[in-house]
Amino acid sequence: MRPLRERLAAEFTATGVLIGAVIGSGIMGEQLADGNAAVALLANTGATVAILYVLIEVFGPISGAHMNPLVTAVLAFRGHLERRAIGPYVLAQLAGAAAGAGLANAMFGLPVMQWSSHARSGWGLWLGEVVATAGLLFVVLRAPREKVAALVAAYIGAAYWFTSSTSFANPAAAFGRMFSDSFAGIAPPGVPMFIVAETIGACIALCATRRPAA
Amino acid sequence: MRPLRERLAAEFTATGVLIGAVIGSGIMGEQLADGNAAVALLANTGATVAILYVLIEVFGPISGAHMNPLVTAVLAFRGHLERRAIGPYVLAQLAGAAAGAGLANAMFGLPVMQWSSHARSGWGLWLGEVVATAGLLFVVLRAPREKVAALVAAYIGAAYWFTSSTSFANPAAAFGRMFSDSFAGIAPPGVPMFIVAETIGACIALCATRRPAA
Amino acid sequence: MRPLRERLAAEFTATGVLIGAVIGSGIMGEQLADGNAAVALLANTGATVAILYVLIEVFGPISGAHMNPLVTAVLAFRGHLERRAIGPYVLAQLAGAAAGAGLANAMFGLPVMQWSSHARSGWGLWLGEVVATAGLLFVVLRAPREKVAALVAAYIGAAYWFTSSTSFANPAAAFGRMFSDSFAGIAPPGVPMFIVAETIGACIALCATRRPAA
Amino acid sequence: MRPLRERLAAEFTATGVLIGAVIGSGIMGEQLADGNAAVALLANTGATVAILYVLIEVFGPISGAHMNPLVTAVLAFRGHLERRAIGPYVLAQLAGAAAGAGLANAMFGLPVMQWSSHARSGWGLWLGEVVATAGLLFVVLRAPREKVAALVAAYIGAAYWFTSSTSFANPAAAFGRMFSDSFAGIAPPGVPMFIVAETIGACIALCATRRPAA
Repeated sequence: MRPLRERLAAEFTATGVLIGAVIGSGIMGEQLADGNAAVALLANTGATVAILYVLIEVFGPISGAHMNPLVTAVLAFRGHLERRAIGPYVLAQLAGAAAGAGLANAMFGLPVMQWSSHARSGWGLWLGEVVATAGLLFVVLRAPREKVAALVAAYIGAAYWFTSSTSFANPAAAFGRMFSDSFAGIAPPGVPMFIVAETIGACIALCATRRPAA
Repeated sequence: MRPLRERLAAEFTATGVLIGAVIGSGIMGEQLADGNAAVALLANTGATVAILYVLIEVFGPISGAHMNPLVTAVLAFRGHLERRAIGPYVLAQLAGAAAGAGLANAMFGLPVMQWSSHARSGWGLWLGEVVATAGLLFVVLRAPREKVAALVAAYIGAAYWFTSSTSFANPAAAFGRMFSDSFAGIAPPGVPMFIVAETIGACIALCATRRPAA
Repeated sequence: MRPLRERLAAEFTATGVLIGAVIGSGIMGEQLADGNAAVALLANTGATVAILYVLIEVFGPISGAHMNPLVTAVLAFRGHLERRAIGPYVLAQLAGAAAGAGLANAMFGLPVMQWSSHARSGWGLWLGEVVATAGLLFVVLRAPREKVAALVAAYIGAAYWFTSSTSFANPAAAFGRMFSDSFAGIAPPGVPMFIVAETIGACIALCATRRPAA
Repeated sequence: MRPLRERLAAEFTATGVLIGAVIGSGIMGEQLADGNAAVALLANTGATVAILYVLIEVFGPISGAHMNPLVTAVLAFRGHLERRAIGPYVLAQLAGAAAGAGLANAMFGLPVMQWSSHARSGWGLWLGEVVATAGLLFVVLRAPREKVAALVAAYIGAAYWFTSSTSFANPAAAFGRMFSDSFAGIAPPGVPMFIVAETIGACIALCATRRPAA
């Protein structure tokens, strides 16, 4: 196993690129799509799927490429990560998410630091996050190691469309997306319930997969 | 081979997620596509292809990931499944399909239980279902095991567009889609002939592949 | 090597499904795309790429899955196919292409037998066909066998957009597309020069790849 | 290792096809997309991703399929290419890029030789190029050899959307795109700063990957 310092740098970078890509492609999609939100979301989906695949393949061998506090927590719970690494991993992910949001804002000439005004709340969306996160963790726990990048990327690509919440499925994503007043953003008041719903989804996945991943 | 109970749970879950994804992405696509049905169907196609790939990879080793009564019947006919499992498999698939439709409705804040008003009938569509299902079963019977997830997903992605019926190719899908008054739905009166057409297609595939799949 | 009869049935079927998918997805795309031809061509491209991948994987082990007289001719020239099979292969492909066009027309409730009125001619398009076919044959001759399906499908997906002719790159496709008065069709007077241009492209690929494929 | 002459022909051809595909699909997208720039960029992205994957798979075994002076420079710096080949590689890439642009123009019936009037400049775009190129080189240096084609193609597909500059990430691309007054073009005054930004990105990737690729 790589030294913790190196793994934390990988989690910071990977999460930053992921959230930067989610937000950046959302801004680009919205700017170009001429008001057709489905076209913007198609672009946002394609970019997210592609970068997720790349990040998991490239950073997976270094830190596991969790990029998601619930993935970190669940894998630690199952014994695939030392428990003392949970806190540092999560901090690296949150810092990376915020940095990625700022980088996306800067690339598109927007104020680097901003708050989203995109309200996201309601029972439908929360149920969406429960489903999205349960599915994601199920895939993470069940996928054969050599296919996990393709499977996680494909799952998220589908869940962007079949869940009402466009599948954040990741507290670090919910955190980072607060810092962009754009297509992919989420207004801060909506974040806590998203994280609660995601946590419930992760618990469901833990229950549904009694045996640890191979 | 896994215990039947475990396999039925897998068929229920996989079919539920599949039909939930088909219906959910149809609702999302329709809501966002600003009246451009091709954009909505592109999104619906992408989500279906991606989740099919994931479900076959993840649930395949458990139950075979049939998610389709005709796949179950044909594989049993060819000796890949014990015949006494056909009934339970089909019931699990139908129950999963209905549950998935209800879940999609709930996520999007719609009445959980509803009937589709989307009329689908006519010789062109029925011929489409014959072609779609014959092709699907042909791929299922001929694909090498390690490629079946990618091949089935790619086939369905193409058939969504090249068949006039958007390729249900699955009695459980026809059943579940009745319960959603949305883009992907089918009004109940159209279901029986769809299932007849699909069954004819499956028989054609059986005839065309005299030797069992490797 | 399989008996010729079996290989011809495979070429007939594969070419029929390919051309049926090209034409069918073109009709569906045009019907749904609300006048946005790029959206229709995106759908047409996706369906073509996906079905090509499936057909080459599934029929490749039977007949080679050429589906294209120039692929057949070039592979025979390089010694990968017995020369006496060229004529029968080409006839099976042309018959399959016409049958596929008729099937697509029937599925969409159109007259089964019709002529395209979609004029395609001019130096730009002919140059496009030269480039498209040279590239296709180059990929066919150079691709490692286990990647040929993915590479041919990806190449055609790109060439649909980067060549001015939307990359027929296949005399059987030019032949079959005559029989559909739709998005993917070609009016008969344009076919001969398309085939001339494709043949020139194939010769360029032969010259550029002096050594036979591995 | 292949003779230099053969490798240079491969770099010329691959870069030509790449830039021809980028520009050609941009022209096609713009012509068909009915003013929806996001749809045009989706098509442009799909064609670029697909042809990149094909070119790296097909030409990789011959010349490495760099198609990019910064890839050539960085790999030479890391000892994967003899230093005396850098100059010839770069010249072959630039010549290929210009030829590819001319070929795309000719296919679409436009003046073969033209200058782009598409102004691209500003701190946001330059930061975009730094990020895009740093990411590309990082992937090139870290990707396992057998996955490099898929990973580079997926990365560029994402970066087309998440960077403000649509991720040229390649001085040969910036050079070749000058010669097309179309969607994918760049007006000559913008090229030098794009190349400066790309070079900075490449240096960042070199610093971030102290150990050579496996």
